[in-house]
Amino acid sequence: MKLKDIGEFAWIDRVRRGCLVRKDAVLKGIGDDAAVFHVPPHRATLVTTDLLVERVHFLKKATSAFNLGYKALAVNLSDIAAMGGEPREAFISIAIPEDCTLDYLDGLYAGMKHLAARHRVNILGGDTTASKTDLILNIMVLGTMPAEEILFRHTAQIGDVIFSTGFLGDSRAGLHLILEDIPPDTPALEKLLNAHLKPRPHVEEGRFLATLGAVHAAIDVSDGLSSDLGHILRSSNVGALLDATKIPVSPALKSFCARFSGDPLDYALSGGEDYVLLMTVPPEAEKRVLAAFEKTFHRPLFAIGRITPSKKLEITDASGRILPVFPSGWDHFKPDTSGFLPPDQGGPV
Amino acid sequence: MKLKDIGEFAWIDRVRRGCLVRKDAVLKGIGDDAAVFHVPPHRATLVTTDLLVERVHFLKKATSAFNLGYKALAVNLSDIAAMGGEPREAFISIAIPEDCTLDYLDGLYAGMKHLAARHRVNILGGDTTASKTDLILNIMVLGTMPAEEILFRHTAQIGDVIFSTGFLGDSRAGLHLILEDIPPDTPALEKLLNAHLKPRPHVEEGRFLATLGAVHAAIDVSDGLSSDLGHILRSSNVGALLDATKIPVSPALKSFCARFSGDPLDYALSGGEDYVLLMTVPPEAEKRVLAAFEKTFHRPLFAIGRITPSKKLEITDASGRILPVFPSGWDHFKPDTSGFLPPDQGGPV
Repeated sequence: MKLKDIGEFAWIDRVRRGCLVRKDAVLKGIGDDAAVFHVPPHRATLVTTDLLVERVHFLKKATSAFNLGYKALAVNLSDIAAMGGEPREAFISIAIPEDCTLDYLDGLYAGMKHLAARHRVNILGGDTTASKTDLILNIMVLGTMPAEEILFRHTAQIGDVIFSTGFLGDSRAGLHLILEDIPPDTPALEKLLNAHLKPRPHVEEGRFLATLGAVHAAIDVSDGLSSDLGHILRSSNVGALLDATKIPVSPALKSFCARFSGDPLDYALSGGEDYVLLMTVPPEAEKRVLAAFEKTFHRPLFAIGRITPSKKLEITDASGRILPVFPSGWDHFKPDTSGFLPPDQGGPV
Repeated sequence: MKLKDIGEFAWIDRVRRGCLVRKDAVLKGIGDDAAVFHVPPHRATLVTTDLLVERVHFLKKATSAFNLGYKALAVNLSDIAAMGGEPREAFISIAIPEDCTLDYLDGLYAGMKHLAARHRVNILGGDTTASKTDLILNIMVLGTMPAEEILFRHTAQIGDVIFSTGFLGDSRAGLHLILEDIPPDTPALEKLLNAHLKPRPHVEEGRFLATLGAVHAAIDVSDGLSSDLGHILRSSNVGALLDATKIPVSPALKSFCARFSGDPLDYALSGGEDYVLLMTVPPEAEKRVLAAFEKTFHRPLFAIGRITPSKKLEITDASGRILPVFPSGWDHFKPDTSGFLPPDQGGPV
């Protein structure tokens, strides 16, 4: 069945089900000229948005509708997490090509609603329209947090320890499996595929770390460790020295690299789409932050390097040599091969 | 010059200029994982969003880049106006096909920035990406207002007088000129073309009327008088009787209809994209609201009919006959020809 068989309005009724998971402070959801709600008092408002275009960001055949919907929302929740915020309201705009089936759309919204409900995020509105060719999805997420706890990118300090909240490189390995059509025939490969298709946004981690009052700067890993850390360095006007022996690589990625002759460090440095958080913490707070994180999440934070005055991104290898890292920035229009840190730009615009 | 010649990041620097027109309460605009700002205390937050797709909503050759950007923002401001709100922050997501020139993009953003600045609306973020075929634009506008003044759709009361804040049908006549390739060779035709290409969102009117505390329900005219009034009727579970002799038709539309053998009433009832506001007011407040509006805006509000218990949309013609009006709803997927009022759906989703 296609959308035109039931019409826009019947479909909107279908979309509406399960969108409101937290009714406090919502005055109007779907069904008026605008959604209306209250932001909790004494909180700053955060807004992030992400536009996904078929054949640019995803191929319908490479993922399920459910996973596509899930991930489209996940990347926005990850941006809120990277500020230390609590995501609260989501808005979904979709342009639907004529040949798109209702089943596919139901799956897409099921994936979004599943993740939204898990984080108590309401879907309060959006826009629905037709598209001539590609499926288009624009998601906007609004979050809130105390203003004094916001984790910016431009506030890293020389001497800060750099942390990652999780393993790096798994998602890129999962993408490799998809692109090379390699069946995930072991639990390790399954894990990597899942890391790419259904990344878990580190919302609780971001919020928790923000409340500690010790984090100087933060970003989520969407483009890759080197590129995203590069955004922090550039906007903070500093450099960093990573320790190659400390970059957290999962057992799954190690077994993948052993089997397919890959370098785990390459995957970790330039992988992208891991959606873990990178943050910088002053050295005197290092132990306290590590202990608090481990006590709360029952797994370690990974210290991977230090902020330096060099304005360059460098790495020490196992033998102690210092090597430059070239950020593998993802420029949608012009891949940067200059080796310089990309200019500060960031998620919004 | 194309975008790929300067790259995404240089272009983002270009976009950033002139985006921040009101710095109070903005903690971070473009350049981090999310924008951060304060909503004024004791205000509800409004969010509306609109997704525009080339070849579905616009043709590049039918309008200038400036006007396209202007109108894309205008329709969102109009949604905030229809709630009685004050628009404050805008977020622009854009997917850009490879053949799009920098000049075109500059024009597009100039149109948005022009209108945003006029309404003291900040452009605080968005997303930029590539598109394989069509230019895609998703605009989200956030507004605020006192919760007790919000103008919903579902709150019309039997006996209410229905008002329009401006002429109806001009925009459709302007569209006719474009579709039929008729040159706007008189000031009247120029006016109609302008009404279609650069509609003025009634932001001040909406805000002012909301503060009067007398308006029961409101909506903006995007799909057409019959269709949009239909949304109010359906969601309020009431009907309406319009007076054909009272529907405000501009001198320009009259001269257009005389020249091209059109019926002004048809244009006014089913035209769409006028972006004036319709609202319902209890009869005892009619005189006060009319007088206050005229005193403030130096032009009249137009009383065009009454809310009835009929649950139908009807109109009396000049001879006093009562005729049914069939809402010319704009369903992006399945045009409704049943004659029934379309189900309540609304702007968001």
